[in-house]
Amino acid sequence: MQFSAVQLATMLDGKLEGNPDVKVSNIAKIEEAGDGMLSFIANPKYEEFIYTTQASILIVNESLITERPVTPTLIRVKDAYSAFALLLEKYKQLVGNKTGIQQPSHIPASVKTGANVFVGAFAYLGENVVLGNNVKIYPGVYLGDNVIVNDDAVIYPGVKVYDNCVLGKRVILHAGCVIGGDGFGFAPQPDGSYKKVPQIGNVVIHDDVEIGANTTIDRATMGSTVIRQGVKLDNLIQVAHNVDIGTDTVIAAQTGVSGSTKIGKNCVIGGQVGMVGHIHIADNTKINAQSGLSKSIADPNTSLNGSPAFDYKSSLKSQAIFRNLPDLEKRVKELEDMVKQLLSEREGV
Amino acid sequence: MQFSAVQLATMLDGKLEGNPDVKVSNIAKIEEAGDGMLSFIANPKYEEFIYTTQASILIVNESLITERPVTPTLIRVKDAYSAFALLLEKYKQLVGNKTGIQQPSHIPASVKTGANVFVGAFAYLGENVVLGNNVKIYPGVYLGDNVIVNDDAVIYPGVKVYDNCVLGKRVILHAGCVIGGDGFGFAPQPDGSYKKVPQIGNVVIHDDVEIGANTTIDRATMGSTVIRQGVKLDNLIQVAHNVDIGTDTVIAAQTGVSGSTKIGKNCVIGGQVGMVGHIHIADNTKINAQSGLSKSIADPNTSLNGSPAFDYKSSLKSQAIFRNLPDLEKRVKELEDMVKQLLSEREGV
Amino acid sequence: MQFSAVQLATMLDGKLEGNPDVKVSNIAKIEEAGDGMLSFIANPKYEEFIYTTQASILIVNESLITERPVTPTLIRVKDAYSAFALLLEKYKQLVGNKTGIQQPSHIPASVKTGANVFVGAFAYLGENVVLGNNVKIYPGVYLGDNVIVNDDAVIYPGVKVYDNCVLGKRVILHAGCVIGGDGFGFAPQPDGSYKKVPQIGNVVIHDDVEIGANTTIDRATMGSTVIRQGVKLDNLIQVAHNVDIGTDTVIAAQTGVSGSTKIGKNCVIGGQVGMVGHIHIADNTKINAQSGLSKSIADPNTSLNGSPAFDYKSSLKSQAIFRNLPDLEKRVKELEDMVKQLLSEREGV
Repeated sequence: MQFSAVQLATMLDGKLEGNPDVKVSNIAKIEEAGDGMLSFIANPKYEEFIYTTQASILIVNESLITERPVTPTLIRVKDAYSAFALLLEKYKQLVGNKTGIQQPSHIPASVKTGANVFVGAFAYLGENVVLGNNVKIYPGVYLGDNVIVNDDAVIYPGVKVYDNCVLGKRVILHAGCVIGGDGFGFAPQPDGSYKKVPQIGNVVIHDDVEIGANTTIDRATMGSTVIRQGVKLDNLIQVAHNVDIGTDTVIAAQTGVSGSTKIGKNCVIGGQVGMVGHIHIADNTKINAQSGLSKSIADPNTSLNGSPAFDYKSSLKSQAIFRNLPDLEKRVKELEDMVKQLLSEREGV
Repeated sequence: MQFSAVQLATMLDGKLEGNPDVKVSNIAKIEEAGDGMLSFIANPKYEEFIYTTQASILIVNESLITERPVTPTLIRVKDAYSAFALLLEKYKQLVGNKTGIQQPSHIPASVKTGANVFVGAFAYLGENVVLGNNVKIYPGVYLGDNVIVNDDAVIYPGVKVYDNCVLGKRVILHAGCVIGGDGFGFAPQPDGSYKKVPQIGNVVIHDDVEIGANTTIDRATMGSTVIRQGVKLDNLIQVAHNVDIGTDTVIAAQTGVSGSTKIGKNCVIGGQVGMVGHIHIADNTKINAQSGLSKSIADPNTSLNGSPAFDYKSSLKSQAIFRNLPDLEKRVKELEDMVKQLLSEREGV
Repeated sequence: MQFSAVQLATMLDGKLEGNPDVKVSNIAKIEEAGDGMLSFIANPKYEEFIYTTQASILIVNESLITERPVTPTLIRVKDAYSAFALLLEKYKQLVGNKTGIQQPSHIPASVKTGANVFVGAFAYLGENVVLGNNVKIYPGVYLGDNVIVNDDAVIYPGVKVYDNCVLGKRVILHAGCVIGGDGFGFAPQPDGSYKKVPQIGNVVIHDDVEIGANTTIDRATMGSTVIRQGVKLDNLIQVAHNVDIGTDTVIAAQTGVSGSTKIGKNCVIGGQVGMVGHIHIADNTKINAQSGLSKSIADPNTSLNGSPAFDYKSSLKSQAIFRNLPDLEKRVKELEDMVKQLLSEREGV
């Protein structure tokens, strides 16, 4: 796709400076942009690039002052960053705007689909699946029986959703993630073996949730594993059965949450964190990467670090001393020698 | 599917109290059950719910005494929990009882299949694949050449099994797991690059093993990576080449086992644990979540914790003092001041 | 496939001792090899097996001296290990040498393919995909629009590559890995929710890179996430947006690298390591398993350990004292008692 400077200026309601007919077909950072590319300058730190960039069109703040002639066509707008972000979003929508049903795909007669849906080749929809309006199911996706996908959701290639799970509006599931696999529930038997506990619940994902590539969210034993509105999960995260993650909480890659744990709203959780099962994490909790949570956090707005995790600042102090433990041990040894000396002198008296 | 109270009572050999014609089509926990749902009460703690639940049918112990009238139809049995678990299992079997070959699927003439198999659409079977009786291959599964799947195994959507691997009876592989990928074996070259060591072994999974979603088990360099009878692996676990995991060992999510390590029988291993390669872990070892094992464990029945891991109880004591390291350091500082004072007084004498 | 001793001796330019007509159809370690199998002895430690092995053919060093008659046919070569590795490689090439396009697969008219390509059934190629010579695309692979795959690359089943990513020559992607998913970029909003930042960059993987099963590499926000020549990534690794991994660096399973971090050349990084974003790791850095990197490493050839990580040897010393922290605390307590006694005696004077 190509856009001319005049088309872009019209879209953004911007003021054009330079050749209105120059065209761009790609987008890049100012320091990497070449011929035929669009870029932007929002931060004054990058203004020097305006004289050297190979970009064909630049979006800049209307307040920008140039001190000598520049090669690219400029489009002046009120807020260059917002204008650029808007363009990015429109561009993604244009590029991603697939509709129609590709063949071969597996769509039983019992499936109900809304308007403007896309179903890619080799996608498999189970019995009674419901797809809302504008839903995009990429190639090779598997949706089990009775799965409901609400309006404007995007399911990337190779996602697997087991029977009876529910996906909210505008949910984005990235490639390879698995929703609704059996929870890890086994009853120990007298002979040392384990008997599987049937997992008959489901997973319910609310509106505006985004789930990263190859992340796994297990179905509940009974009831639902719940991911609430606006939650963002990164790649390769494990969410066990009957977990409940609160509104607008974000979790970085490779973190694991054990069964029945309940995480509050607006939490910010780093990567590679582990949480044991059956604990409650209060709203607005911040957990540093690689921490291990073995107890509930009752007070909101707590910051935690370490494995096992405790108060963030205290933990940094302990870590600092840990680095110098050999020195501390040496100081204790020296004290022992001196005290021994003092004691022996006293004896000698 | 709907079941009437009288049908369920007959199935469970239970005694009916209330309307025998009421029907249920779903199952829920007592505190969440609504109209048209079946639930149970096994724990006396939950008996209070019997007067308020919206459930249509309840399975209860025959010994239960009600103090006032109840709305749901009751089915009295010897052991309410076991009866309910039995129903769950029957229900799962009914729901999961797919058979037949869906099209399009890729099944070469050299493939041998037993009775009552299910092969979903877009499943790919390599040359000489063997499927035992009642095997279920969900949509989008890939089985490489010569893969053997024994009776009653269930392979969920999107599982990939490389050439020559063997899966035992009643094995369950959850969506997205990868069995038999190349081990991570590279020979360092004088110029700093690495040369791939061909990985020509396989993976052998014994009977009654369950493997979680997106878990990866690498094939052996030569010989076999072996997962023994009854092992249960959670999601997102890494098992490297030539590892051997003993009978009835369970491992929680996101744990990683490095190459050629041998784990004994009946071990219980937490989540996010790491083990280096070429070590032996004795039978009945317990390893706490996030631990790191860098040495063999020779004695059975050991409990371990920490990274690097050591004896569980000792490790908790060290962790407790770690939290108060700043305090310990302060005590040493105070001792130094006092001893300095004592020494200077002595000098002064 | 079967090979006779004389065929193998000819291939390896070796000297035959024993029956030239004996045939082998499989390969095994010397201690596990049975009838009809080929094995080798390179390490003198294993020479004792020569008199007891059931193998039909053995490759041995020409210098090997036998003290009594042996059953297997011997093939004597200069370097038994290299000869055996060469055979393994040839064997893998023979077995893996698939070509042709299987149906059904999705290949739009705009796709360009080189000579001798293989595309398995249920593979999906987007618009304008380019496949070089000898490229193998296994069943169920997804390649988004404009993806370029260079000569001799092998893409295993169920790999997903998003739009516009580029794969170098001889790249190997193992089953289930996801290349080019959206980076984890969200702008916090005043109401506590997050707004997705469009991720319009790509992933560029250079020549001779191998990526493990279910590993995820996110596309750049703008520009490229770059994996440089010869890099080897194990299974279940997370590589975030705009990361850059240097030539011939190897990373073990389950490690996570946060956004915009730049790793140098020839680094060796253990499993389950975590790195924060926006740091630089110097060339030839060694990082022990389960370490956590929160700061840049400026000096090449550094070895690191711990979470947070510091100098490897110092960290081992701190860990050793950590194990004995209860003992250190006891020594401090004893010092306090003694000093208190000394002080009270002084008072008493």
